[in-house]
Amino acid sequence: MTELWLIGIGTGAPGHVTLEGQAALREAKAVLIPRKGAGKEDLAHLRHAILRAAGAEARVIAFDMPVRDPDLPYQQRVAAWHDAIAERWGVALADVPEGPVALLVWGDPGLYDSTLRIAARLSPPPKVRVVPGITALQALTAAHAIPFNTVNGAVMVTTGRRLRDHGWPEAAETVVVMLDGDCSFRALEPEGLHIWWGGFLGMPEQVLDHGPLAEAGPRIVETRAAARERHGWIMDTYLLRKG
Amino acid sequence: MTELWLIGIGTGAPGHVTLEGQAALREAKAVLIPRKGAGKEDLAHLRHAILRAAGAEARVIAFDMPVRDPDLPYQQRVAAWHDAIAERWGVALADVPEGPVALLVWGDPGLYDSTLRIAARLSPPPKVRVVPGITALQALTAAHAIPFNTVNGAVMVTTGRRLRDHGWPEAAETVVVMLDGDCSFRALEPEGLHIWWGGFLGMPEQVLDHGPLAEAGPRIVETRAAARERHGWIMDTYLLRKG
Repeated sequence: MTELWLIGIGTGAPGHVTLEGQAALREAKAVLIPRKGAGKEDLAHLRHAILRAAGAEARVIAFDMPVRDPDLPYQQRVAAWHDAIAERWGVALADVPEGPVALLVWGDPGLYDSTLRIAARLSPPPKVRVVPGITALQALTAAHAIPFNTVNGAVMVTTGRRLRDHGWPEAAETVVVMLDGDCSFRALEPEGLHIWWGGFLGMPEQVLDHGPLAEAGPRIVETRAAARERHGWIMDTYLLRKG
Repeated sequence: MTELWLIGIGTGAPGHVTLEGQAALREAKAVLIPRKGAGKEDLAHLRHAILRAAGAEARVIAFDMPVRDPDLPYQQRVAAWHDAIAERWGVALADVPEGPVALLVWGDPGLYDSTLRIAARLSPPPKVRVVPGITALQALTAAHAIPFNTVNGAVMVTTGRRLRDHGWPEAAETVVVMLDGDCSFRALEPEGLHIWWGGFLGMPEQVLDHGPLAEAGPRIVETRAAARERHGWIMDTYLLRKG
């Protein structure tokens, strides 16, 4: 089996692509591109623009993303979906014996992304190379020009679901929340917390807000709903800090 | 006062530089470069190579890093040192009224880095722009081709000192440790923990190791000491995961 290269391309700004990422796209023999990306159709043209900017001449292999079975329980549904994606990748990889085959991954392939877990399902397992990318963590703190951590402080990177279920993690001064479709900061007692929020980070549609959670929270709920309505989807992240 | 641009350039691989970073270096009127970088003299030539690769024609303003006063207590020593650095930046910024002035920052300007805090000391405060960079978090997980987080899991990003003082943070499946000069993983009960370690991430000198903490830990202590001896310095990071 050929090599599989997972290339982090950042959060949607063409400028987030690294020189290593561009070089890898030029060296790849084929690039696997989903015809639809989880409802984010706005992003499809960005992948092609990134390939052009890199001067990539790789063969583009488009594949249809399988559909998730709504009748399965959550864990099984995701597992079955990953199996189905892996099967489609396997077919494409077998078709490019001269490899390597590249995949463009939003953000970084390691951060709240399934790509590595899907690649691990392939049989025989391909040699996997990961090219690191700019994550939403850095895009968020850069957009607000704030530090990720307090001096010598700890940062918890977590999900909206966990924030709702477990509250503020005791050992952290800072919490960054990913994968939150539900403004889960509403589950926290806002007193003493500050929020920095960003949607469409790095893209022309970027929206930012920040302030004491008690004041900025309700504003962000509205801004998020309006932006989601306008674009049909939204990807957002936020950082919460004590004091 | 002119604009100050903090440009994240990644962990030492020229390929970590982003297209946005390159463009910013080309647009900057001057680049502030320390003559010595915290004992990491190996890296001085890298800054110049990055400027050349970007096609930057900015004026290079070299400045001597002030010396930390060993007689002061830790917090005061760092504060006085940041004051002194800010003073030198202020002089250079005043000299480039046509701005913007750029600084090359290892990793990302927001992650365990003092640059934003030093910039906040400038008077009058410059307009600060942050260009996000590849962090050691991504360079580490990419080098090992592992995910940063478990599925829906939380990750605590912390320091060696805190790991020693507070032990394993209860709410996290994964812990990433930065700024650890002391192999603080030795303070943990290794049973059930796995470590992925990397030194000089992204550089030709890169060293990696991983395994169950009980076995890999002592090996890493030795490898780290030998690499540090050989190069005169080391910058390393590691990820610990349960199960």
